[in-house]
Amino acid sequence: MTEQTPRKVDMEKIVSLCRRRGFIFPSSEIYGGLSSCWDYGPLGVELKRNIKQAWWRAVVQERDDMVGLDASILMHPQTWAASGHLEGFADPLVECKSCHLRWRVDDFEGDVCPSCQGDLTEPRLFNLMFKTFMGPVEEEANVVYLRPETAQGIFVNFQNVVNTTRKRLPFGIAQIGKAFRNEITTGNFIFRSREFEQMEIEFFVKPGTDEEWFNYWLEERLNWYVKLGIKRENLQLRQHAEGELAHYARLCSDIDYLFPMGWAELEGIANRGDFDLVQHAKYSGKSLNYLDEEAKEHIIPYIIEPSAGVDRSALAFLCDAYDEEPDNEEIRVLLHLHPALAPIKVAVLPLSRREKLVVVAKQIYADLRQQWMVSYDDAQSIGRRYRRQDEIGTPFCVTVDFQSLEDGQATIRERDTMNQIRLPIAELKRTLAAKLEGEPLFVLPPGGQIWKGGENG
Amino acid sequence: MTEQTPRKVDMEKIVSLCRRRGFIFPSSEIYGGLSSCWDYGPLGVELKRNIKQAWWRAVVQERDDMVGLDASILMHPQTWAASGHLEGFADPLVECKSCHLRWRVDDFEGDVCPSCQGDLTEPRLFNLMFKTFMGPVEEEANVVYLRPETAQGIFVNFQNVVNTTRKRLPFGIAQIGKAFRNEITTGNFIFRSREFEQMEIEFFVKPGTDEEWFNYWLEERLNWYVKLGIKRENLQLRQHAEGELAHYARLCSDIDYLFPMGWAELEGIANRGDFDLVQHAKYSGKSLNYLDEEAKEHIIPYIIEPSAGVDRSALAFLCDAYDEEPDNEEIRVLLHLHPALAPIKVAVLPLSRREKLVVVAKQIYADLRQQWMVSYDDAQSIGRRYRRQDEIGTPFCVTVDFQSLEDGQATIRERDTMNQIRLPIAELKRTLAAKLEGEPLFVLPPGGQIWKGGENG
Repeated sequence: MTEQTPRKVDMEKIVSLCRRRGFIFPSSEIYGGLSSCWDYGPLGVELKRNIKQAWWRAVVQERDDMVGLDASILMHPQTWAASGHLEGFADPLVECKSCHLRWRVDDFEGDVCPSCQGDLTEPRLFNLMFKTFMGPVEEEANVVYLRPETAQGIFVNFQNVVNTTRKRLPFGIAQIGKAFRNEITTGNFIFRSREFEQMEIEFFVKPGTDEEWFNYWLEERLNWYVKLGIKRENLQLRQHAEGELAHYARLCSDIDYLFPMGWAELEGIANRGDFDLVQHAKYSGKSLNYLDEEAKEHIIPYIIEPSAGVDRSALAFLCDAYDEEPDNEEIRVLLHLHPALAPIKVAVLPLSRREKLVVVAKQIYADLRQQWMVSYDDAQSIGRRYRRQDEIGTPFCVTVDFQSLEDGQATIRERDTMNQIRLPIAELKRTLAAKLEGEPLFVLPPGGQIWKGGENG
Repeated sequence: MTEQTPRKVDMEKIVSLCRRRGFIFPSSEIYGGLSSCWDYGPLGVELKRNIKQAWWRAVVQERDDMVGLDASILMHPQTWAASGHLEGFADPLVECKSCHLRWRVDDFEGDVCPSCQGDLTEPRLFNLMFKTFMGPVEEEANVVYLRPETAQGIFVNFQNVVNTTRKRLPFGIAQIGKAFRNEITTGNFIFRSREFEQMEIEFFVKPGTDEEWFNYWLEERLNWYVKLGIKRENLQLRQHAEGELAHYARLCSDIDYLFPMGWAELEGIANRGDFDLVQHAKYSGKSLNYLDEEAKEHIIPYIIEPSAGVDRSALAFLCDAYDEEPDNEEIRVLLHLHPALAPIKVAVLPLSRREKLVVVAKQIYADLRQQWMVSYDDAQSIGRRYRRQDEIGTPFCVTVDFQSLEDGQATIRERDTMNQIRLPIAELKRTLAAKLEGEPLFVLPPGGQIWKGGENG
């Protein structure tokens, strides 16, 4: 099942599965879609929730050196003057007067349209931030921007967090939220869209310890993906060359994933030095120093930033989990999603729609869904229903059959191995909890039986 | 503790607590704030996460007639033509040529500025939607809007959800997400802001059953607030008068809460009839019918919409939980937050910073935070630390003292009653789980002791 060499999945298969089963739809699809925006359907929203929850658990809940934050998308415009986005986050564009195509000036030499040889307008600077107006009149004084990154919401709250939490260096602030970039080149499904969701950590450290913390976070974040099921051989680290570094960065390494279109950035870890706090102190006139009580002096912390994308992570988890296996005359499509990420944890399936079975199955369903996202399905053959669950990554199916009515037992069937065990219904919740929450093996109660996988459809 | 008559809390006290302890800060505060936008700090983000999780659990996870969705904020502009927002979501404004104040035309009679008697401009229509441009050039063809409500993302995906989930009527689609309104009148802290988060259900039913479902959801949603601790006497239902109904609504009732500024809408439940699906079918040219298999005919479902605000709910939960009690010479400020909503579930407090105590306390802390958001605090006197936890609504404190080193026991102290029990450290997790996850009483293991409340600071 686990392959030892990198393997690219066909993007069309992922897009088709997402569309067909309700993971991801084009935004406003009935109106022909809105370019490079996507809506997450019933399964996609659960996958995204699970990714965000796993991240929050790992970086906030389980750590004593991190707190969360949720800053607003609309921020004071001076934020973007200080951050460099107003000046630097722009491309010069020219427009063809005949065909109206627009071009990056940097992309070609010459003074005619590369497509139709038409005349071009003068270059205009095109900022990648979405601009809007706050208040009743559209005038310069009212311009605000949709944030192009969540990071700045953390920097401007640095002093607020220090004052209210009494955290001491080193400590971090973590945030999940939407950001918007009016990208000219979008595509590759949800890989690059104009509206996207970030999971960002800004980790504040004493200057001089920043290299150590940079390496720490690089490893920590890489391990997070591996723990959640991404195959190690599909991940690689890539350090930015000097000329490639963003204006704020002293050092940056990407965690690249082998996406269907090739290796591309999944997460970036940057050493931002003191750039952000210095800039915001300068533009706001507020002191953003930190009192180092040991050294009895004020310092400006350095910042290590692990910046991940929710949508990109979702795409990577989907691609990595995707698998096809021969299944008699057909193909078994399955997602080997980690149980923590699977949209549905358990599917309850009565063998038939006979009322006696349905009553028992619905009781089990009602009980299990107190604890997890659980699905109930009584349509079609049991084999078809297993396949439907395999395809969306459901780790376990619980099947109620006629024997269940006599012996009070049900069958748990495992997605990857197709192994089945039969056990008392009263033991279901405890056994599933052990499996779903990380114990390595089935806890087989006395009298339980195990079968090796391979069932017919 | 529970009061029998409605009681208003002073808004200033809520704002001050939120600011002081890191629940909520003004957005971009170092730049003087951005009008009517707010940032949720380390405690506020946990409160909001808990509200959203409790809602999702109640309306999606625990129901078999509901699925989730997460549509994008930027939608195809035709959406807003169909919904009526482009035409109807606007106020005519005039501007004073002298003092430049702007006025709703509806707000006064006469033709001079009500403030300085200056001349007024002609009325201009001011749409409450935030407008921006997608793509490289700011021209009409590229206008998009920030959604003023999450609801439309559900309507345009109705057919996608039916096709991919095989749900049959009645069923609902639930969504949590940001929405934006360029309100002229904002205020009352987080009650009305220009950027806010909604929790919306669109529940699709057969025409003729809509009255029944409307009443069902009104009761269901009211009970949700009560179950999570809002005092019933601080909630009331208010049915909209006919002239007050929005253009899409056949019937609407608000669940009002007694906010500090008076009774105001916490959640609205509307019967939208078939307005939305009819409009989107007309504007998109797509069929949004539903095949009623029993009646063998195509119908257009009616929609019942319970629409709640995350920020408003947070404000209501904070106001309702706020309490002050005499505490010797001082006042004990506490938040009686429901355990499911409390940002921190347990605080672990060693009696002193002696290393032996710290080691034991940190072990407990490391163990408990695998399961919940837990805080560790060893600064100041134990009484001061209890008060700090009371003020942020932490339901339980676990105290490790010198006796713990000998008998392996620790003390759990309960926020509301200040009762304490002492029990084996190995029993802590199980006992806290029982209390936090809804069992009514302390599970007192053999040999455990109980004290009645009232400790000194």
